[in-house]
Amino acid sequence: MSLLDIISTTTHALSQNPNAAKATFHADHALVGVTEVLVKVGSGHQFTVDEPAALGGQNLGANPVEYALAALGSCQAITYRIWATKLGIQLDKVEVSIDGDIDLRGFFGVDEKVRPGFGAIRVSVKLSGNESQARYAELSDAVNAHCPVLDLFANQVPIEHHLTFNAA
Amino acid sequence: MSLLDIISTTTHALSQNPNAAKATFHADHALVGVTEVLVKVGSGHQFTVDEPAALGGQNLGANPVEYALAALGSCQAITYRIWATKLGIQLDKVEVSIDGDIDLRGFFGVDEKVRPGFGAIRVSVKLSGNESQARYAELSDAVNAHCPVLDLFANQVPIEHHLTFNAA
Repeated sequence: MSLLDIISTTTHALSQNPNAAKATFHADHALVGVTEVLVKVGSGHQFTVDEPAALGGQNLGANPVEYALAALGSCQAITYRIWATKLGIQLDKVEVSIDGDIDLRGFFGVDEKVRPGFGAIRVSVKLSGNESQARYAELSDAVNAHCPVLDLFANQVPIEHHLTFNAA
Repeated sequence: MSLLDIISTTTHALSQNPNAAKATFHADHALVGVTEVLVKVGSGHQFTVDEPAALGGQNLGANPVEYALAALGSCQAITYRIWATKLGIQLDKVEVSIDGDIDLRGFFGVDEKVRPGFGAIRVSVKLSGNESQARYAELSDAVNAHCPVLDLFANQVPIEHHLTFNAA
């Protein structure tokens, strides 16, 4: 089945049965070193997250905020593929470069007025293909309206917290 | 140098020189298959992001929204380590389990009123150690106030977009 067939079939199925559109994604994390974290996700993959030596780690993997940027950049790239296919726009190449600024005084509690996360994000997308500039602008608007991880960065998400502890 | 020494030294340095606290993290992404994305991050690591067959991919890696959950879960785990050390709270074990709900009608453009990203997130943290419940509650409050990726999920981040294209 072509990607266009997959998209058309899925779009039709979800419009007929909105309950089929409800997906839950899952990830488990264990702190296995000073800052080393082993992650196992629902699709069966596992990988390591760590911090550099400056934060007490061994740089055994990308750190959490790099994975957050990677989630955004890869989601942008894949959403370009899906929506170019939906809109019939030829797309030969997609590259996404992202910078994210953090003021580390927030994380270390040096200044409680400084937020701990990203203060600003810059997303740079390079496309290649034979369509008009207007069509790529149309594609970019569609991607930014439908990219799941961009929505996460740009808006608030309701979060429930649950804490349990056992005496060692 | 112990982790506590690293934290104390860093906290002191950042309070003396706020400019030293300004960090920029970076990630580059290339769409190298139908939905396969190769990611290279600033700390020198690279990894693959992909979608399952239902979305035209080959499941060669976790997908973008799983990486987003992993960013949050690993950031929670590491922030528990750092803040337990700062606060002098014994911590033997940290496990973080996260579920995130997405209504896929948003991503596929079936219903423009449905947001494309997470509609809800559930974070479950399990701690082990010999301190009182009150101290672990104090730790949890400190972690949730200083965790960079939790801040990203819970709040809006300003995003600049830049698009360039080349004729193929």
